[in-house]
Amino acid sequence: MPKYDVKELLAKAEKPNQDAMRLHPFYRGKIAVTPKCRIRDFDDFAIWYTPGVAAVCKDIAAHPEKVFEHTNKGNMVAVVTDGTRVLGLGDIGPEAGMPVMEGKAILFKYLGGVDAFPICLDTKEPDEIIQAVKWLQPSFGGINLEDFAKPKCFRILDTLREEMSIPVWHDDQQGTACVTLAGLINALKIVGKDKKTAKIAMVGAGASNIAISRVMIGDGIPAENIVMCDSKGTLHKGREDCKDEPEKWNMCVNSNGEQIVGQIPDAMKGADVLIALSKPGPGTIKPEWVASMASDSIVFVCANPVPEIWPWEAKEAGARIVATGRSDFPNQVNNSLGFPGIFRGVLDVGASTITDEMAIAAAHELAACAEDKGLTDDYITPTMDEWEVFPREAAAVGMKAIEQGLARFKMTRDELFEKSSSIIKHAREETKALMKEGLIEMGD
Amino acid sequence: MPKYDVKELLAKAEKPNQDAMRLHPFYRGKIAVTPKCRIRDFDDFAIWYTPGVAAVCKDIAAHPEKVFEHTNKGNMVAVVTDGTRVLGLGDIGPEAGMPVMEGKAILFKYLGGVDAFPICLDTKEPDEIIQAVKWLQPSFGGINLEDFAKPKCFRILDTLREEMSIPVWHDDQQGTACVTLAGLINALKIVGKDKKTAKIAMVGAGASNIAISRVMIGDGIPAENIVMCDSKGTLHKGREDCKDEPEKWNMCVNSNGEQIVGQIPDAMKGADVLIALSKPGPGTIKPEWVASMASDSIVFVCANPVPEIWPWEAKEAGARIVATGRSDFPNQVNNSLGFPGIFRGVLDVGASTITDEMAIAAAHELAACAEDKGLTDDYITPTMDEWEVFPREAAAVGMKAIEQGLARFKMTRDELFEKSSSIIKHAREETKALMKEGLIEMGD
Repeated sequence: MPKYDVKELLAKAEKPNQDAMRLHPFYRGKIAVTPKCRIRDFDDFAIWYTPGVAAVCKDIAAHPEKVFEHTNKGNMVAVVTDGTRVLGLGDIGPEAGMPVMEGKAILFKYLGGVDAFPICLDTKEPDEIIQAVKWLQPSFGGINLEDFAKPKCFRILDTLREEMSIPVWHDDQQGTACVTLAGLINALKIVGKDKKTAKIAMVGAGASNIAISRVMIGDGIPAENIVMCDSKGTLHKGREDCKDEPEKWNMCVNSNGEQIVGQIPDAMKGADVLIALSKPGPGTIKPEWVASMASDSIVFVCANPVPEIWPWEAKEAGARIVATGRSDFPNQVNNSLGFPGIFRGVLDVGASTITDEMAIAAAHELAACAEDKGLTDDYITPTMDEWEVFPREAAAVGMKAIEQGLARFKMTRDELFEKSSSIIKHAREETKALMKEGLIEMGD
Repeated sequence: MPKYDVKELLAKAEKPNQDAMRLHPFYRGKIAVTPKCRIRDFDDFAIWYTPGVAAVCKDIAAHPEKVFEHTNKGNMVAVVTDGTRVLGLGDIGPEAGMPVMEGKAILFKYLGGVDAFPICLDTKEPDEIIQAVKWLQPSFGGINLEDFAKPKCFRILDTLREEMSIPVWHDDQQGTACVTLAGLINALKIVGKDKKTAKIAMVGAGASNIAISRVMIGDGIPAENIVMCDSKGTLHKGREDCKDEPEKWNMCVNSNGEQIVGQIPDAMKGADVLIALSKPGPGTIKPEWVASMASDSIVFVCANPVPEIWPWEAKEAGARIVATGRSDFPNQVNNSLGFPGIFRGVLDVGASTITDEMAIAAAHELAACAEDKGLTDDYITPTMDEWEVFPREAAAVGMKAIEQGLARFKMTRDELFEKSSSIIKHAREETKALMKEGLIEMGD
């Protein structure tokens, strides 16, 4: 990896900010609600509204499941936030969170063909958030929770998953876990190490790392080979202070087979893999700690906006494969590789929930997509512009849902791939057509 | 008016039902959420999502009013229902109400360039509905309440209007009132009667007729010239049973100058105008009651799906001008002539509420649009396909908001008309372009 000039990097990072400040007001936001049915003339409104629509309403009243046939509910996902943990910006409130939710919505549409709508809630109380989302259920086919502060994000997710009949997803948990697992699968393959024996140090015990550990274990990585650190050090059975946090306590009890008691360097010493999602760097992870890892070490340093250690520093210290959360370095662990394809599959088979097994199936398919193109130290996951990734993930996820008995509609993998592909292609062509016709201007 | 064959009418009315049952599943609903900003390649996502979007979020956090610049909040209206009074179908629930809300959304977009999104709530409790809508405020620039049962619709509207900082509208109240007033203004003009002296019988004391009476009085029609009937007869000061319903009691006290005590025929005898929004007919209004009205009488019989008296019966009984709620007779009192243009104007000037004065301004502009084309007994309001109606209404409403000091943005009538026109044209061209490109198929 070439050494970057940090000043140049930061200057380069300013460009998207400047473009964003100029172009958001130019378009006045990023999403619109548009008809997807024919409107040839005003007679068509007699079909879409009174009097014709009454027949359709009565049909749903008599056969509730027909709401998925007669409306867009089955392709509509709410992107819900209270604005308490937006990006790395903290609690900036629901209005200031809107641009991120609209951005997420266009990623959902352009990459996954999913209609996604920002729901920015004017309350921060977990019980009220849960209540609000439950009241919204009739309009939506899925819920994407976004940028809720910890620890309320856990309870909101768990409660809604239990009490709603549509899939509820927190991207910082299963989404990050899926894409990280995909990268890990390929990185281990490249360095020729076995997931059953690799030693894994995890830095950070937030929502993302907790979910990553759960999904790794679900995929067959032994819990005892994982050592997780929070701000106080390694998680082990003596960490009485963690007893109130069930997710953390579970790691204290079940992971860290050697019961290492210490700090980050103790966890990293001799480890094959580092997965850090903690405090933005540089300097959170020190080069000497990386140097103490096993040979051919794999380093995920995914804090935003600046990784826990600069990639070139990690490489100089001996890491072989380095992944970050940033698009301007190789091996971006990019959530946008996950949720659009996963939701596509889930919606296309009408799944009632998104299990860890489905996220794992998506991770393996994602890994396979990159492998098909040829893995290198700098290419362990696909990139967002490899569009076939998304229908492949959708098919993997949908088939898993069918296998688990959680799907409303049954179909073959080929049928599912065909269906998902055509919906995603349609979404892309639509935006292209509107740009071609000048109905979306270029704004430059 | 030619006499219609009732059987033939009803058979003809079956066609939209059949088309609706075939075409709703073909499109799987009527609305989509689509990008309205450029997506040339994947680098653009660095502007719309991380990292660029952070600059925009921070800008809103520091200057809350900039949410109207950086997001689509200012053009986004929630179409909210609990499904308790959908069309004439009664309490069919929020899912079964979805097709109507999606239909309303495409009317909002195609006629008014407004992005409207269906929010079908899974609760029927007025307090919970109020709470849910308030929590949704950050995402929306306006609220359209739809198909709530009476009497909760009044309290929900009044509370939300008071407690929210964005416009809240119940189409069955101000919307119906606006379009009815427009028709009445022109009908009186045609028959050469004066609104200051015309005697008006109203049949039905539901949400719509109450709002119509309030708006008529606001426009200078003397309350004492109005006699309103509910199911028990005329409203007068002796109607102690109405004391619990403030809207009705207000009419008992202030209308009915002669204090007529009796039933519908007593209210209609000698009246110049009948405005009925009551029980579907035929037979709710009897021909002999119409015959007892003054010469050149004006009859609005707007129950759906069948008017209180068939139009040809009313004409045979002596009515000169007859209006209904149906598109297959002349003089349709069509709410779609109101809300799209009214919201366009309200959103374009960033009005904080929609006053009766704005609805009255819209009514006069609507009336002027028809007058410009030439009024006849069978043409008292424009039809939905006269697209210039909507920016004209928008300009009238926006100017009234500015005059009343309720607008966030100031502009001239010409600027406002130009702005509204261009947004509405864009919406229509978009749908046309997608049909031309085959991205909205024809489905026939």
